[in-house]
Amino acid sequence: MSVNNAKNIVVIGGGTGTFVVLKGLKRTPHHLTAIVAMSDSGGSNKRIRDEFGLLPTSDIRQCLVALSGENGGAGILRKLFMYRFEKGEGISGMTFGNLFMAALSDILGSQAEAIRQTANVLRIHGQVIPVTLTKTNLFAQYENGEILKEEHLIDEPPHDGKLKITSVSLKPKASANADAIQAIKKADLIVLGPGDLYTSVIPNLLVDDIPQAISGSKAKKVYVLNLMTKFGQTYNFTAQDHIRVLRTYVSFDTVIVNSTPISPSALTVYAKYHEIPVADNLTQTSDMKIIRKDVVSRHMNSKAKSDTLVRSLIRHDSKKLAAVLVSML
Amino acid sequence: MSVNNAKNIVVIGGGTGTFVVLKGLKRTPHHLTAIVAMSDSGGSNKRIRDEFGLLPTSDIRQCLVALSGENGGAGILRKLFMYRFEKGEGISGMTFGNLFMAALSDILGSQAEAIRQTANVLRIHGQVIPVTLTKTNLFAQYENGEILKEEHLIDEPPHDGKLKITSVSLKPKASANADAIQAIKKADLIVLGPGDLYTSVIPNLLVDDIPQAISGSKAKKVYVLNLMTKFGQTYNFTAQDHIRVLRTYVSFDTVIVNSTPISPSALTVYAKYHEIPVADNLTQTSDMKIIRKDVVSRHMNSKAKSDTLVRSLIRHDSKKLAAVLVSML
Repeated sequence: MSVNNAKNIVVIGGGTGTFVVLKGLKRTPHHLTAIVAMSDSGGSNKRIRDEFGLLPTSDIRQCLVALSGENGGAGILRKLFMYRFEKGEGISGMTFGNLFMAALSDILGSQAEAIRQTANVLRIHGQVIPVTLTKTNLFAQYENGEILKEEHLIDEPPHDGKLKITSVSLKPKASANADAIQAIKKADLIVLGPGDLYTSVIPNLLVDDIPQAISGSKAKKVYVLNLMTKFGQTYNFTAQDHIRVLRTYVSFDTVIVNSTPISPSALTVYAKYHEIPVADNLTQTSDMKIIRKDVVSRHMNSKAKSDTLVRSLIRHDSKKLAAVLVSML
Repeated sequence: MSVNNAKNIVVIGGGTGTFVVLKGLKRTPHHLTAIVAMSDSGGSNKRIRDEFGLLPTSDIRQCLVALSGENGGAGILRKLFMYRFEKGEGISGMTFGNLFMAALSDILGSQAEAIRQTANVLRIHGQVIPVTLTKTNLFAQYENGEILKEEHLIDEPPHDGKLKITSVSLKPKASANADAIQAIKKADLIVLGPGDLYTSVIPNLLVDDIPQAISGSKAKKVYVLNLMTKFGQTYNFTAQDHIRVLRTYVSFDTVIVNSTPISPSALTVYAKYHEIPVADNLTQTSDMKIIRKDVVSRHMNSKAKSDTLVRSLIRHDSKKLAAVLVSML
């Protein structure tokens, strides 16, 4: 495909799912933009927020790594950006990439500019944009009335993980990064998910003007349905449940659903955590196209490295997913 | 000057003085090698040694910065390498460059390889070589019999700074880095100093085989005499004192002495610390050439940044010094 046929693809999310999408699309000739939620508050991010007074950068960092060049100096920096310190009092547990961006933010006096310059030295294919520059926190209310503040608590709630979330919000209200609005306006394809529904995908849609910009965009809008439910967040959610919830925040016209079985041995691990494959109970409606394809990875991600979640054995396949997405253009 | 006339210059030291020499020589077409002492043990280096189990990297880092490219990605990394964290519990006080090299050493499984790859991403003009890869400590014995261990203590001894050092040694014994020996053998010019006599220059000469390699090299060997005495180390030392001490460790054939007066206002600051200009009491002898030139910087380094010493107001001028050195080739 010639460069003249290059289209604008905007991927909205932030977590591991977005990493997988970007990694696949990186090898296509299209212009990529990752729009990343800014409400993460766990681990290294918590320190970046509390001690450095900055926006969280772990999701930004993951997207930069996904899109980074892999040769020469950029290749070394890419490895460093995936590195988490295991030694050093007060340093162990911090990711190199977060410290890199914290130092550069201080030098440049602007975190947004630090992200842009980091993207340059990593020679990324595309751009990575924080959905908002407002320092904000995610709040979730549950069906029993309980309210939890901060994403890392919502990710691993102290209560029974079967409880349903009834609403999520950002406090303080967050205004959209103008660069994000701009990218959405110019998009030919907008990809939502896969990823944790309430803590990776929806936090982007809670930012003022973002849902309106997506709705107003001429782009095709596709939701990549999660492969697995998530205890504490989307317990026993079916495909319809995911779509019903997401549609209260934003409109989209297509959903990509995995059509092939998942390895039974991996399912056994997930079952221990009360997590099951998302049941495909979708029926074709006039307002939504369903694409059923084999998009699951055959590679078991058995070495759970410091930066990947314990339960990321089951993942989308970058290449398969990219092929389906590109076929929509 | 054409590249064919490029000569091999080896600069031996490690501290601020070496930084100044390298910065000036960087703009010449010659092949540069910095050989750096590995006995530093203060501040950020202490943590790199104690908590990460690595060789000290602050002097390496300064030399890399001195020789680094200043544009594009290398320029940003250069700024980061000069950065010291001021926020973050357990992180504040650490230099970014030291953390960069600690992370890369862990990833690559070799600190020597990490230094080489760091040099690549900083696009340095030349090479920076640790004089030894042995983990060692500097010991100093004083005229009252007292022994101090570790460079940072010797730099700021707890006793009366007028006390003379009678001997210095490395424990354990350190063997020479083969790359350092190789560079010395190929050198056309070897530059010793300027810099703290006992803690920056001589520690290189305490490494097994290094003095012999220097003596055996066909290179011209020049000592750049310090501008100022150092309380606690070279109190009231004259030019002859410096040369007499250094000659007990290594032979050299030329000394560069500053010939012009130093700003009285800067001298006032140094006088508070019992430090005075090194008196030029040298007389021409058959075995040593004396080059007297204006090599002092007219720029008062008034903004003492985190990475520079309080008493670095008076410095050699990079360009003037480089011109004198190049004229010797």
